[in-house]
Amino acid sequence: MALSTKPLSGMRQRFPEQFRVEKFVTDMLSGSSVSAGFQEYDGPVIEPLALFAAKSGGELVGRQSYSFTDRGEREVILRPEMTPSLARMIASSGELQLPVRWFSMPLCYRYERPQRGRVREFLQFNLDILGSSSLASELEVILVLNGIMKSFKAPSSIYRIGWSSRRFMTEALLRCGVKQELHSGVFSAIDKKDKMKEEAWSDYLLQSCGGDKKVAGTVVSLVSVESPSDTWLVDLMAESPALREVQEFDMLLEKTGISSAVFSPGVVRGLDYYTGIVFELMDTGRENRRSLCGGGRYDNLVGLFGAGRISGVGFGLGVLTLTLFLESYGLVPDSVRQAAPADVYIAIASSSVIATAGLLAESLRNSGIRVMMDVSGKKLGKQFSEASRNRITQVITVGVEQAETGIYKMKYLPDGKVTAGSVEELIRILK
Amino acid sequence: MALSTKPLSGMRQRFPEQFRVEKFVTDMLSGSSVSAGFQEYDGPVIEPLALFAAKSGGELVGRQSYSFTDRGEREVILRPEMTPSLARMIASSGELQLPVRWFSMPLCYRYERPQRGRVREFLQFNLDILGSSSLASELEVILVLNGIMKSFKAPSSIYRIGWSSRRFMTEALLRCGVKQELHSGVFSAIDKKDKMKEEAWSDYLLQSCGGDKKVAGTVVSLVSVESPSDTWLVDLMAESPALREVQEFDMLLEKTGISSAVFSPGVVRGLDYYTGIVFELMDTGRENRRSLCGGGRYDNLVGLFGAGRISGVGFGLGVLTLTLFLESYGLVPDSVRQAAPADVYIAIASSSVIATAGLLAESLRNSGIRVMMDVSGKKLGKQFSEASRNRITQVITVGVEQAETGIYKMKYLPDGKVTAGSVEELIRILK
Repeated sequence: MALSTKPLSGMRQRFPEQFRVEKFVTDMLSGSSVSAGFQEYDGPVIEPLALFAAKSGGELVGRQSYSFTDRGEREVILRPEMTPSLARMIASSGELQLPVRWFSMPLCYRYERPQRGRVREFLQFNLDILGSSSLASELEVILVLNGIMKSFKAPSSIYRIGWSSRRFMTEALLRCGVKQELHSGVFSAIDKKDKMKEEAWSDYLLQSCGGDKKVAGTVVSLVSVESPSDTWLVDLMAESPALREVQEFDMLLEKTGISSAVFSPGVVRGLDYYTGIVFELMDTGRENRRSLCGGGRYDNLVGLFGAGRISGVGFGLGVLTLTLFLESYGLVPDSVRQAAPADVYIAIASSSVIATAGLLAESLRNSGIRVMMDVSGKKLGKQFSEASRNRITQVITVGVEQAETGIYKMKYLPDGKVTAGSVEELIRILK
Repeated sequence: MALSTKPLSGMRQRFPEQFRVEKFVTDMLSGSSVSAGFQEYDGPVIEPLALFAAKSGGELVGRQSYSFTDRGEREVILRPEMTPSLARMIASSGELQLPVRWFSMPLCYRYERPQRGRVREFLQFNLDILGSSSLASELEVILVLNGIMKSFKAPSSIYRIGWSSRRFMTEALLRCGVKQELHSGVFSAIDKKDKMKEEAWSDYLLQSCGGDKKVAGTVVSLVSVESPSDTWLVDLMAESPALREVQEFDMLLEKTGISSAVFSPGVVRGLDYYTGIVFELMDTGRENRRSLCGGGRYDNLVGLFGAGRISGVGFGLGVLTLTLFLESYGLVPDSVRQAAPADVYIAIASSSVIATAGLLAESLRNSGIRVMMDVSGKKLGKQFSEASRNRITQVITVGVEQAETGIYKMKYLPDGKVTAGSVEELIRILK
């Protein structure tokens, strides 16, 4: 029986044209990171299950994990996200001087039902600063995120960086009358606001507030606030250091001119480990506001490894989600998809001159020219078609005569113009 | 209980300095591939077990695999190698015009006992040409492999590309008197020649030849041959098309000046799917000749998917093995390990000017300058130390005065020289 020609559902398979698009995106992400002094790292795909059982949301490990027992009887998991491995790396290196600015482009795994933009095997860009509790870290990380969007030439009308603070919201919920034990449920409800119909959401929120209509109403007011200087909010949060931090950060963003960053108390993020400022990058150009990226400050992750408390701030961004976003707004240039794989094609008129063609290819390559040498063994006409189908514009033909004289003819396909010359002359023309 | 700070045994974890070394190697591999018109692709890490059960060596799937049943009751495996996924991709795309030249840098998995240069999670560079049966393909692939070694400035004294042919060896064994049913065992024995002591190997070979001393002696003569024009060999292989192909390829390599490629009948490669020319890249600079890379022609892989017969030729190269080889010969430049993560460090004299520092950082970054902005909030002296420890040579200090005047001081740490200027002037100096 023939094997299936399809990969497993939700798995990542990239033909060269798709790979170029993905690489266009990942190169831009790396470029923005490097530009801000961030350094790349990587960790294992296979991790101990315990690493994720500890701090990621329960759903990740319980129902959405690729976990199994290896041949050495270890309970392992294919990482669903990068942050716990990062925290471990930081904790393990006594020599490491803090703060560090790191980024990574890991493959991650979640067993979810595949749909547009949601797959089981995905590249997730991660960028973090660890070892600094200054708000300058939050600012720097958001500067990089905003810089990424600008590098793709995304107009500010199609995205927004909504931000809030877990610490602030915890205190705000208490002042709204939500008891501590209900917070987790209310955060979940707030997180789902944009994903549900208004009425259904109101019911859900009311339930999460223990059925107290007055409390639920105050929470609705809270998540509708649009500025940390809002009078109602300032009243509610009188004397709160958490409000002062939020106001300070708001001013920092304003002074730095990041107009896409907007205070949004409704942004709380799903993952359990966030403790301070949290943020989301949202697609605002359409009805359904999708989250492209989420992040924030986490204080207690590195401590799990027995090292002291090391605070971190960072974000994760799905490369596929971002790619679909860019494509839907026409922000992936056609030139990326249509790039030619070589500058010159070497056509071979006879199998007796293959070695000559190989030598010529080597000379050109050593001069920095990308050369595709014919390997088809077909007739010359077909070799020219092959060059053309690969969008290669220059074709050098090697025949017995050229092998003897060392003078080659090069044809520029778009206008059919032919130049003749030695290897050195051709190199000069091509460069 | 605190979580372990170590990754699982044999897993790949890269701190930034190690990552830079690995990236130096992978960038060079990609560069050589792109230079020859090869295009990058990727496939899934998680594959159906059946994909590998079909054609890889039995050991890979039986004892060395990371295989498990997923939440959808699928028997899956973390790919131990790339070629079967590649064959599937080629078979699945009806639109694909052949030949194709593709490369990839996949993470692969084998459950082996970890030791120096052998790990469980590894990057394996793959490069293949599919859809051409011309020897120009074998030549092109070996040109790229040789080009890779030259790009690392490896002297030809420390490596060798040994090559032979499975088709040729099959016929040669028959003519040596080895019965068809013993071939698989004799190939295994030949493959282990360099890994065993001489006497033990002789016994092993004799056994694999069914105990026939005369036959075993002829096989020893066969694997000692150093040229396809050797008189004894030509006699043995009279009228053989397989010998003619080997002679033709030998001449191609000689004419192309690839002196590191040497005919070696002892090279047979372990994987079951090779059918024609096979080759190995070997470290010849030390007693123990290690294989860095292996490849060859495979005719029957794509057919497994019900597509027609599509012949391929390619190789796989372990990035870690190559890196250790390069390091042991001092071929990883110190500058790779010691590279500074930024061109300029922005020191911040007071938390009231963080936004000004952020704006300055953005201006410099937009001009292509890599900027590390302080996030530590420490005193200025410590910020300068931080720049210095990161090997960053220029430090711009932002204080209240600079924020007001827009004139900044920049210190060049190696000689302590200070320049003052506007953002535009600093950009000019830095570029």
